[in-house]
Amino acid sequence: MTMKLKLYHYWRSSSSWRVRWAFQLKKIDCEFLAVDLLKGEQKSKAHLARNPLGKVPVLEIVNEKGAPKFLSDSIAMIEWAEELFPDPKLLPGDAFQRARIRQLSAIIHSGIQPLQNLGVNQFYSKDPAQQKEWARHWILEGLQSYETLVKETVGKFSVGDSVTMADLCLIPQCYNAKRFDVSLEDFPTIARIFENAMQTPECQASAPEKFQP
Amino acid sequence: MTMKLKLYHYWRSSSSWRVRWAFQLKKIDCEFLAVDLLKGEQKSKAHLARNPLGKVPVLEIVNEKGAPKFLSDSIAMIEWAEELFPDPKLLPGDAFQRARIRQLSAIIHSGIQPLQNLGVNQFYSKDPAQQKEWARHWILEGLQSYETLVKETVGKFSVGDSVTMADLCLIPQCYNAKRFDVSLEDFPTIARIFENAMQTPECQASAPEKFQP
Repeated sequence: MTMKLKLYHYWRSSSSWRVRWAFQLKKIDCEFLAVDLLKGEQKSKAHLARNPLGKVPVLEIVNEKGAPKFLSDSIAMIEWAEELFPDPKLLPGDAFQRARIRQLSAIIHSGIQPLQNLGVNQFYSKDPAQQKEWARHWILEGLQSYETLVKETVGKFSVGDSVTMADLCLIPQCYNAKRFDVSLEDFPTIARIFENAMQTPECQASAPEKFQP
Repeated sequence: MTMKLKLYHYWRSSSSWRVRWAFQLKKIDCEFLAVDLLKGEQKSKAHLARNPLGKVPVLEIVNEKGAPKFLSDSIAMIEWAEELFPDPKLLPGDAFQRARIRQLSAIIHSGIQPLQNLGVNQFYSKDPAQQKEWARHWILEGLQSYETLVKETVGKFSVGDSVTMADLCLIPQCYNAKRFDVSLEDFPTIARIFENAMQTPECQASAPEKFQP
């Protein structure tokens, strides 16, 4: 199978980082193409043809035959990558452990991220101070949930001693949380995972700064 | 492997319905135990021991040996069920089609549901009219996204002619949307899937009315 991949992403989008990091770990060859959310490029005709929802990240899959195919949603992409490029595993272990990894991931990707993203924030209020309070509330609540649950599985990372999909969700969220003055001091387990993860070369190579225009 | 399952759920919770429906389809033997959200039972000591996040649904897995194990997050449970009870498949097809099923599911479980649930609604405003407008906004936006994307894969159901995880997310959300006066008239593809799904015995057997106290 010859397959070319293109990831349309934004350097500071936490869900873009999740996918960049997964691809780094799995050594998946991929071209990274920036979509500038500040310039509104996600609503351009070209991008809407890739993703009618006008969001990043979007994965373009070009096979030898047939039209290019498009995927959006970072978790769907990571699960797709896990099936086609199983090494190293981002969902290791038995069915129960894999479920716990998905459960932790969900605290971030469906418990925090949808509530504190830019569009929701701006719809909630036009006042930057109120926007910040709104985001902080959901980030703090979500991280508290994560902190409680992760204690049952934590090793060097969220579940054991290898990076899993849960970390791919957690770390960009923590990084992002700094913009809302959320400190990790109250979440000692998460703080330790964050420190460990940020030292790994794949996390560093996929971090926002590396893609800042 | 002898394994006993208990699902702690609430009759009107859309994520509880997703899991009940999955278990019906896969003929998974499970005891259903009600947690009355209106009485605050999700915050009881007994329930917090099952799920420190105080939410439903929670799956209790009792094996012959060892302490009972707990899972929360409906998607993690459905993926877990898919791995251990693969027939019938809720994520059929190749890696790309499975990813599209997960992408559609995510529009509901991370794009709509977190924004319109009771806790977020009540935090947003104390005014029922404003709460309703908030919920309607995100439901309409999410269903519009779903309507656009699903056209590429729709058959009798969201992806082809068998019920998939995407339908398990979509149908309870549509059902729920009626409470916010959201009509499916503007979403003809979704309306057709909804009608087809509601006629299936497994959907009917897992529907809220069957579990109403």
